[in-house]
Amino acid sequence: MSANIQLPTDTGLYVFVNNQIIPSTEAYLHISDLAIQRGYGIFDFFKVKQTHPYFINDYLDRFYHSATQMNLMVPVAQDVLKTIIRELTTKNNLAESGVKMVLTGGYSADGYQPGTPNLIITQQPFSLPTQAQYQTGIKIITHEYVRELPTAKTINYTMGIRLIQEIKDSGADDVLYHQAGAVSEFPRCNFFIVRQDDTVVTPAENVLLGVTRKNVLALAATRFKFAEEPVTLKDIYEAKEAFLTSTTKRVLPIVQIDDKIIGNGKPGRVTQALLQDLISLEDKELAETGGRMK
Amino acid sequence: MSANIQLPTDTGLYVFVNNQIIPSTEAYLHISDLAIQRGYGIFDFFKVKQTHPYFINDYLDRFYHSATQMNLMVPVAQDVLKTIIRELTTKNNLAESGVKMVLTGGYSADGYQPGTPNLIITQQPFSLPTQAQYQTGIKIITHEYVRELPTAKTINYTMGIRLIQEIKDSGADDVLYHQAGAVSEFPRCNFFIVRQDDTVVTPAENVLLGVTRKNVLALAATRFKFAEEPVTLKDIYEAKEAFLTSTTKRVLPIVQIDDKIIGNGKPGRVTQALLQDLISLEDKELAETGGRMK
Repeated sequence: MSANIQLPTDTGLYVFVNNQIIPSTEAYLHISDLAIQRGYGIFDFFKVKQTHPYFINDYLDRFYHSATQMNLMVPVAQDVLKTIIRELTTKNNLAESGVKMVLTGGYSADGYQPGTPNLIITQQPFSLPTQAQYQTGIKIITHEYVRELPTAKTINYTMGIRLIQEIKDSGADDVLYHQAGAVSEFPRCNFFIVRQDDTVVTPAENVLLGVTRKNVLALAATRFKFAEEPVTLKDIYEAKEAFLTSTTKRVLPIVQIDDKIIGNGKPGRVTQALLQDLISLEDKELAETGGRMK
Repeated sequence: MSANIQLPTDTGLYVFVNNQIIPSTEAYLHISDLAIQRGYGIFDFFKVKQTHPYFINDYLDRFYHSATQMNLMVPVAQDVLKTIIRELTTKNNLAESGVKMVLTGGYSADGYQPGTPNLIITQQPFSLPTQAQYQTGIKIITHEYVRELPTAKTINYTMGIRLIQEIKDSGADDVLYHQAGAVSEFPRCNFFIVRQDDTVVTPAENVLLGVTRKNVLALAATRFKFAEEPVTLKDIYEAKEAFLTSTTKRVLPIVQIDDKIIGNGKPGRVTQALLQDLISLEDKELAETGGRMK
């Protein structure tokens, strides 16, 4: 690629681009791709232990669903995609990692009409929250915004990335979106509160249906009251606990929102119970499958 | 690029990628670019006659302004960018064309934090509306949506591209965004109405500040009343004329919105006058500069 003065980071890892597994440093898309021209594409991301992808069917179902919502066709069937993922993760041989699948609008002749989608699969070593974050909880800020197509995992993170600096400047760890006080989600995580009566509540509208969100709701159902319903900023101020969920962060306690302390300012009992339950659920799934893909 | 089974269209044209002018077929970005990973980038687009770019300073000003709004740094100064554009358009030697500059979030190590932006400049032959469209006017549909950062020309066209099929299915030519009945803009054009008293009106809020919009407002000021103020769907139904403006479409009459005919259903006198005035303005600018860049 003599044409580019910029060189990508060499991770030493392999990636899948369309029909081939190749070194990451050789993985390029033509500039006519609709992701580059118009930010048009979808993706999904899941966690892998050696070659075992956790809850893979949920993530693949969502990937294909996002594609449908954006009128894009995944070029391979779900079982073929699983085979590709197995080959890639075997070749990269990482202890713990994240796998990301991106499907773009493809090479567009006029820079607006979608072409044949390009499928990219990458794998990176994993970066979990720090122990300190789990033990002391995190601070978040808020921003008025609703994603334009909340149930699809599109690649559009214009707002989230623009807010990186504001999060840093506030000494916070993430930003929670709301509209006129009704909260929805973080750029990359779902949001939960625990009410004073121990009911676990998460917003039902304008959110991506996270796989960890789904797992945590199912776990909450076994020992707490729970609800998917509107959550306002006021509800958060009056809550006993708050936390976020995501594939990489699992269940992460939130102790401050803007300038308001949540509950007693410490990670709560329900939050910590759900984190332990989730870790057990992951271990159970891994043991059941013997580390192989279901 | 043996790694890609997909091949881009070979336009036979040259493009600029970072520091070099190269054949379009050789212009690739690494998949870690933040446009591909997160749809993060900005662009601008202007019209060129031979090597004369119309109203170039307005477009470049907006390009740098969009970059600032997205915390991206254009890697070259404005006069250097002009020199590059002159070299590229000289090399491609097209009679009439559009030049597009794209600035992406750059190669990102973690797929979220921006890197050093990649600058791409491409040139394509021009596609104007048909004579029939100017003579009979077009039909548009409406959709409830506001761009997330209206004053920046970001690459995010998730909504516009998803609506391509709906526009086709409705036998329409474009889609006008509104929020609770207050209209703003098209995915790629600005919107105007002409009131019964011949006042030329365009929405002031939630719109990209189009260069053609600015020129048309200045032209309207010389012989009509004009205003930048809120426009509702009801205002459109009661209007005498309606039209859109854009770099490629100039001033294009609109005669139907959803199932409602606008005015007498034909391109109006004020619309046609402004189109002629705009063509004269373009000719005047070209003559004044002798086809060279100012």
